[in-house]
Amino acid sequence: MASNMKHEKLEKLAKLVRYFILSATTEAGSGHPTSSLSATDLMTVLLFGGFFRFYADEPAHPNNDRLVFSKGHASPLLYALWGAAGKITEKELLTLRKFGSRLEGHPTPAFPYADAATGSLGQGLSIGVGMALNAKYLDKLPYRTYVLLGDSEMAEGSQWEAMEIAAYYKLDNLVGIIDVNRLGQRGPTMYERNLDVYKKRVAAFGWKAITIDGHNLDEISASYRKALRTKDQPVMIIAGTVKGKGISFIEDKDGWHGKALSREDYEKALKELGEVDKETRGKISRPKKLRPEQLQPQPAGDPDYDPAKPIATRKAYGYALKRIYPAYPEIVALDGEVSNSTFSEIFKEAFPERFFEMYIAEQNMAGAALGLATRRKIPFVSTFAAFLSRAYDQIRMSQYSNANLKFCGSHAGVSIGEDGPSQMGLEDIAMFRAMDNSVVIYPCDAVSTDRLVEEAAKYRGIVYIRTTRKDTPIIYGKDEDFRIGGCKVLRRSDSDAATVVGAGITLHEALAAYEDLKRDGISIRVIDLYSVKPVDEATLKEASRVTKAIITVEDHYPEGGIGDAVRTALATSAVQVHSLAVTKMPKSGKPSELLDYEKISKGAIIQKIKEIL
Amino acid sequence: MASNMKHEKLEKLAKLVRYFILSATTEAGSGHPTSSLSATDLMTVLLFGGFFRFYADEPAHPNNDRLVFSKGHASPLLYALWGAAGKITEKELLTLRKFGSRLEGHPTPAFPYADAATGSLGQGLSIGVGMALNAKYLDKLPYRTYVLLGDSEMAEGSQWEAMEIAAYYKLDNLVGIIDVNRLGQRGPTMYERNLDVYKKRVAAFGWKAITIDGHNLDEISASYRKALRTKDQPVMIIAGTVKGKGISFIEDKDGWHGKALSREDYEKALKELGEVDKETRGKISRPKKLRPEQLQPQPAGDPDYDPAKPIATRKAYGYALKRIYPAYPEIVALDGEVSNSTFSEIFKEAFPERFFEMYIAEQNMAGAALGLATRRKIPFVSTFAAFLSRAYDQIRMSQYSNANLKFCGSHAGVSIGEDGPSQMGLEDIAMFRAMDNSVVIYPCDAVSTDRLVEEAAKYRGIVYIRTTRKDTPIIYGKDEDFRIGGCKVLRRSDSDAATVVGAGITLHEALAAYEDLKRDGISIRVIDLYSVKPVDEATLKEASRVTKAIITVEDHYPEGGIGDAVRTALATSAVQVHSLAVTKMPKSGKPSELLDYEKISKGAIIQKIKEIL
Repeated sequence: MASNMKHEKLEKLAKLVRYFILSATTEAGSGHPTSSLSATDLMTVLLFGGFFRFYADEPAHPNNDRLVFSKGHASPLLYALWGAAGKITEKELLTLRKFGSRLEGHPTPAFPYADAATGSLGQGLSIGVGMALNAKYLDKLPYRTYVLLGDSEMAEGSQWEAMEIAAYYKLDNLVGIIDVNRLGQRGPTMYERNLDVYKKRVAAFGWKAITIDGHNLDEISASYRKALRTKDQPVMIIAGTVKGKGISFIEDKDGWHGKALSREDYEKALKELGEVDKETRGKISRPKKLRPEQLQPQPAGDPDYDPAKPIATRKAYGYALKRIYPAYPEIVALDGEVSNSTFSEIFKEAFPERFFEMYIAEQNMAGAALGLATRRKIPFVSTFAAFLSRAYDQIRMSQYSNANLKFCGSHAGVSIGEDGPSQMGLEDIAMFRAMDNSVVIYPCDAVSTDRLVEEAAKYRGIVYIRTTRKDTPIIYGKDEDFRIGGCKVLRRSDSDAATVVGAGITLHEALAAYEDLKRDGISIRVIDLYSVKPVDEATLKEASRVTKAIITVEDHYPEGGIGDAVRTALATSAVQVHSLAVTKMPKSGKPSELLDYEKISKGAIIQKIKEIL
Repeated sequence: MASNMKHEKLEKLAKLVRYFILSATTEAGSGHPTSSLSATDLMTVLLFGGFFRFYADEPAHPNNDRLVFSKGHASPLLYALWGAAGKITEKELLTLRKFGSRLEGHPTPAFPYADAATGSLGQGLSIGVGMALNAKYLDKLPYRTYVLLGDSEMAEGSQWEAMEIAAYYKLDNLVGIIDVNRLGQRGPTMYERNLDVYKKRVAAFGWKAITIDGHNLDEISASYRKALRTKDQPVMIIAGTVKGKGISFIEDKDGWHGKALSREDYEKALKELGEVDKETRGKISRPKKLRPEQLQPQPAGDPDYDPAKPIATRKAYGYALKRIYPAYPEIVALDGEVSNSTFSEIFKEAFPERFFEMYIAEQNMAGAALGLATRRKIPFVSTFAAFLSRAYDQIRMSQYSNANLKFCGSHAGVSIGEDGPSQMGLEDIAMFRAMDNSVVIYPCDAVSTDRLVEEAAKYRGIVYIRTTRKDTPIIYGKDEDFRIGGCKVLRRSDSDAATVVGAGITLHEALAAYEDLKRDGISIRVIDLYSVKPVDEATLKEASRVTKAIITVEDHYPEGGIGDAVRTALATSAVQVHSLAVTKMPKSGKPSELLDYEKISKGAIIQKIKEIL
């Protein structure tokens, strides 16, 4: 196709895309037409200008280029592009934002051309980093990852985490496009259309920075060509654009963010747009038919712990990853510069090519893990439990991407001791429980950690594994079975006065309390609630029927943790549930001092039982 | 003092500080001596070189310079400096990290010279931004804010949020000092001692960047002098340092992060250090005796809502702030570029000088709010409830700073409708409940919102206010009283079959269910649980005694929310508690469609009651 003809065709397609955007949003009565129009030319050239390579009938093809709309509110543009590619009908475009439609207000994987849910700003670039890491270091495929970014969202720190890590890993297969349309939701951005500010920052973070007029099709094409030629560094195209571009009465105007045109304005807009060829469709280039090398699962060995030697569950986490990797060759591990504390370093040392150091940048770590998960990897992400709170928005968003992601938070609770409250995970169970379909695992010894890490690898979905800093005794034999949703009744008799439910560090306190109470002639039931979500309702209900009270004990704040999980399971039982949890502002001290201070130690359990009986 | 003598004195003091660091950490048996030693010269010159101005006997003086240790693990240095200033004894220094000591593993305000708790990295600069905003725009005092930063933590995106906002607000009273000691926890940082990488980034973000040798006392002094002369932009001193500086066998060595010296190594180290003048003490300059203008509280007007006109609680939030401001003149509002959605813009338009636009950078917004709170302001921080998850680590940390902070999350739950799950706050109650001493408020109408915003302003501590996107009817008279820890029994009779507990949007569904059921001859009790934490146990217990079952209904995931709060209050009651909550993956749709889909609507309540009875 001669350049002129190509240019003409692209203009035609851009017009069609604009028409689709306006039709869909006006029909929906809401949405973000102006934010879509500003990026229309940029994306039309990308998809239909011969740059983007994608088997449109096989969105899951491993060598397809990836496209992430980090500015998820431009979803009408995303849908319109695939409309212009002939992959969704005009009729379906008009279902935008309607209940049951695949075309949600912000993209989700319900739409087959969206790999991940976006819409919480500043997350798409990290997802792109994960996809690009996969192409360059794991699947070793030539696909490229493109991320459409808004100018407002460049204020998010997570973007600069993604920038630094992408440069560090020399991701020359990653292209970001900033749609600098000058206007945020409630007015101008910090830098309006000053492309130079963005350019300086982008370059300082080690990327190749290209500034262009985002409505000049030739400049756009040239920038993609330049991007494709760049080696050893990621590329950012910084495009000056006009919000609402193409429709004069909404162009560059404040007050038009997230607003659909009325029917009347819509008709006016169509007149301005002029004749639209509604039958024209764009062609997307195809990539090479490459697939990654198939990794053959090999049998994993058995865990091998000396039952006489206490060992921290955080350490068992690292050994478990190393042990099971041959059987789950899609595993990758990411760590936030604390691998010698979370012990993901044990895995790193064994399989360095499957480990990514993500430095102290937890948001990007979580986002990149999601990107890896979209490329069929099984990411295990580790840092201190407390610091996973840094990435809660990214973690929360990944539940809408059907993500297969595993998080391990070490240093749970006050039992870490001297480092003090800043390093103590005390809200992490609450955080991970409060998500759709999440799993929360909290093992108390090395054997259960090992087995449950394997269960996490098998399970498809978001799993949180909580580990403990200090060494704990091994209480399980190596052939013991553990399952998501299970628990273990460790002490039971026909005359149990009460049931104590613990997990992790407090399970050992409960076992110690059992021994002391036995000497006093009191027998209690002790349950290891290693699966905090889902919880083994049946076993808890049985205990509630045969013992007088349930006492939960946890190294976590009282809200959202084990107490709440048990009470929910027993909400329609008549049993009393008493809870011991961290209720005083924690401080530095020895682990045992802090367990006593917070009244979650053996002594506190015994006291509580004697109070109740 | 002649320059030579001054130099000599500073060297003496630096030696004393090093001695204190080594003594305290070796006595504690843990801690971070090497990370403290690298910054010793930088901080010694700052405090005792005539730059830092502080009434050492009056740490709360409003015109004192502020010093934030963002690299909180260098706490031994912080304590040692105040030891060298004669403000804590060598004996107390030896209590470091011990249970009950003010000298915790990471600084907390238990230590009077720490304004805020640090230790989760990448938060101190934001706190400093808040302190500097206060000096420049609110208190209008000449005090300066210094923030000591680690090189590893510059990987955190939150730092770059603080950088951009500080430059935007031209905070020439803010000085950052990066201690580039090359080594992170588990090995080298991304850029090791390449000061130029930092310099380029810092400059690109609009700061004055000064690179120095962080152990050359003259260069350090010169850099502070330069910083004091800089106008209209913040200053970053980027100092090349050596981890473990001063003790040859730990200098610049991997494997020494977070490790105290053994007694034996300690003795060796002291020999290297040479003679220490344990009696010498440093003098800190004094600031001018300035105090901010005292704002006189004025009576606030009364809320004025037309009971016939439904209005969204998010809007009432804005009106409430505007109404109560005269009575609480320490209020400031911060918003994450969505003030036209959270309606903090109503306050902004009335009192623009008390409003800070923080752009889409929620982490820095939360950190800066904490900084403002340390300077006796009452910050109200607003964004979408969902996006507060972005700042969960900062929010979590502020509980350890005894912070007086208010957060407002708008767009709670699936009832926002078409925008879809990325914009829905569905974990926010869980997040805020799971903190020590937090308050969670969830009003259902404009009047209760108004009154509860005022209660939040009165209350000293962390309060979360959850607001709703859509208009809701006004159900309360303007003289109705509301209190933290209260609830309202809105429908009651002597023959109530069950109790429905709702809040916010679901309260209106419960009231509608009441009407329908009444027509069927079934009477239910309806409770507005506007205070989700603390919860009104007494009223819930009474309801549990006289009605057959409790049904909670909430626009939130089942875990950590209203259901859990009610079950905790009734944990020792025999009543059945049934919960309706968001249990299916949400999507786009009309609010009413989504409430029905998730079974938290009137219809679902009626169905549940009929099932139970």
